[in-house]
Amino acid sequence: MTNHIVLYQPEIPQNTGNIARTCVGTNTHLHLIRPLGFSVDDKHLKRAGCDYWDDLNVHYYDDVHEFFAQNPVEEIYYIETFGTEPYHKMNYNTGKDIYLMFGRESTGIPKEVIEQYGGAERCVLIPQSDKVRSLNLSNTAAIVIYEVLRQQDFAPLRG
Amino acid sequence: MTNHIVLYQPEIPQNTGNIARTCVGTNTHLHLIRPLGFSVDDKHLKRAGCDYWDDLNVHYYDDVHEFFAQNPVEEIYYIETFGTEPYHKMNYNTGKDIYLMFGRESTGIPKEVIEQYGGAERCVLIPQSDKVRSLNLSNTAAIVIYEVLRQQDFAPLRG
Repeated sequence: MTNHIVLYQPEIPQNTGNIARTCVGTNTHLHLIRPLGFSVDDKHLKRAGCDYWDDLNVHYYDDVHEFFAQNPVEEIYYIETFGTEPYHKMNYNTGKDIYLMFGRESTGIPKEVIEQYGGAERCVLIPQSDKVRSLNLSNTAAIVIYEVLRQQDFAPLRG
Repeated sequence: MTNHIVLYQPEIPQNTGNIARTCVGTNTHLHLIRPLGFSVDDKHLKRAGCDYWDDLNVHYYDDVHEFFAQNPVEEIYYIETFGTEPYHKMNYNTGKDIYLMFGRESTGIPKEVIEQYGGAERCVLIPQSDKVRSLNLSNTAAIVIYEVLRQQDFAPLRG
């Protein structure tokens, strides 16, 4: 059983760097859907503080269709402010790989993508006050992956 | 009932900025123990992306002793990699204010502080692989405050 974080066209390298660090720290695989708002060559990643890239299990895709051609839609969760179910009400301890997709910092995940692959019932939200538009992207990913791990009794950390 | 995040001498403004955003998004109060590794004047905060500072309930202290002179030690939790109990095994739904303290990015919370105020049994850790030294500070704060809120059924967001 492996958990997966999927970033749809991430824009800010520091966010992806922090998420990469969380992935390495939790044995989570990272999937990046292009275009990215930064270069993944060594110099740029190091400058953005991505010190753990060499230990990362990372996969790249030219678009979201390529991602879904290679990964199952059944276990995808879209983390979006327009979701209706809170993230912690889902059952992530299914014995199957769990995929968590997070959208662009500026515009999220396009609704057409969600409609084509799984539909609105795959959207979950993180409860938050109306005083912020959203939380920081890397914080969002950390919150949800640790709820997944908590439900799994942190099994992926035991090997 | 109010939750509180306490940062002990934070060094990196982007981390404090992301934590401030999480605080505003969760109705959590932020406590900053000096010295800080950055200026909290408007220009510097804006440059570090701290767009939500005006909505933040923030308190400053010259040192940790001043903090504990004004806040109860009974409900403090130190989040530290040398903690023994995992963070999610604690009961945060006590009806009392919960205080979560996070240390400097480089050196954490000094052991003398923990020994003087509550002791090692107040330390909790976030389970993680041995491939990272720690997670990003703002990610760490987001993970724990959302576990606190989950246990409280997100009551602070309704009031």
